[in-house]
Amino acid sequence: MTEQTPAPTRTQTTSSCPLCLTPLAGELVRSDHWAVIDAQDPLFPGFTRVIWLDHAAEMTDLTKSQRQALMDVVFEVESIMRKSLAPHKINLASLGNQVPHLHWHVIPRWHDDAAFPASVWTPANDTEPARSRRELTQQALNDYHQALIQRLTTQP
Amino acid sequence: MTEQTPAPTRTQTTSSCPLCLTPLAGELVRSDHWAVIDAQDPLFPGFTRVIWLDHAAEMTDLTKSQRQALMDVVFEVESIMRKSLAPHKINLASLGNQVPHLHWHVIPRWHDDAAFPASVWTPANDTEPARSRRELTQQALNDYHQALIQRLTTQP
Repeated sequence: MTEQTPAPTRTQTTSSCPLCLTPLAGELVRSDHWAVIDAQDPLFPGFTRVIWLDHAAEMTDLTKSQRQALMDVVFEVESIMRKSLAPHKINLASLGNQVPHLHWHVIPRWHDDAAFPASVWTPANDTEPARSRRELTQQALNDYHQALIQRLTTQP
Repeated sequence: MTEQTPAPTRTQTTSSCPLCLTPLAGELVRSDHWAVIDAQDPLFPGFTRVIWLDHAAEMTDLTKSQRQALMDVVFEVESIMRKSLAPHKINLASLGNQVPHLHWHVIPRWHDDAAFPASVWTPANDTEPARSRRELTQQALNDYHQALIQRLTTQP
C-alpha cells in the first residue's frame, strides 16, 4: 500500500481523543498514516475500523491523495473481509458524531445477524441464529486478522 | 467531473430494484455513471444520496477507477454540503442492507438535530431545537441543490 501513501501531515493530535492513542485498542496493523483495528464488538464479530492518524474530522479536511490513500485501505479491508468471512453484505461508514476523528467502520453483515437488515446502530434483536452466526464468524476471525496484517504490511 | 469518469459498464439493471429506476425520486443530477438525489428525509433535510447506476452491491465489485469516480462525487457532495449548509458534522455511509445496489448516504448533522450524536438509523428524539434547526436547513436547501447541480454538471 505504501507506494500511494502521501507525505506525512501529522498537524495535530488531541490528548483527550481516544483515537489519538498509540497503540489503539484492538490494533492489528499501523502505518505512518492509518491504523486498522478490531472493533471488538460483542454482537458483530469481524467489525473492523480504519483510523486516520491525524486528528481531522471530515474526509474533505484531507487532501485528495490522503483521501485516496485512506479509501484504498478501507477497500482493501473490505476485499480481505469478503474473502475471509464471506459476509452477505458489507457496511461502510464514516460518522464521527461521538469521536470527530476520521475513522471508517467496515462491518460484515449476515441476513441472520442481530440487526439485519437494520444498521448496527439500530437496537439489536439477538436471536439463536444470530448467536450461531457469531460462533461461525469467531472461528474465522484469527485467519481474517492474519490476512489483514499480511496484506497491509506487504508491498503491493 | 467527467474527465475522471471510467468507461460505461452497465452490465445489469434489475426491474425490481428501486435504485435502477430512471428518473429516481428526488433526482437532482445524473451522469452516465451516477445520480445525486435529495433523500427527502422529513427529519434530516439536506440528506443526500449518490447512486451508482449499475446494479452492483459492494464497492469492491467496482474497478478501482470506478470506485474513485464514485468517491470523487461523494466527496464533492460533502464539500458543497459543508459550504452551503455548514453542518457540525458530515456522516457518510454505504450500507445497502435494504437495497443492495450501491448508494452513498451523505448526511449533514447538527448537535441539535433529532438524533445527534446517535446515527440517523437510531430512533430519533424530535425536539423543538431540532424543529428550529430543520427550518433553518430548509431555507438553505434550494441554494444547496442549485450549487450541487451547477458543480456536478460543470467540467472541472
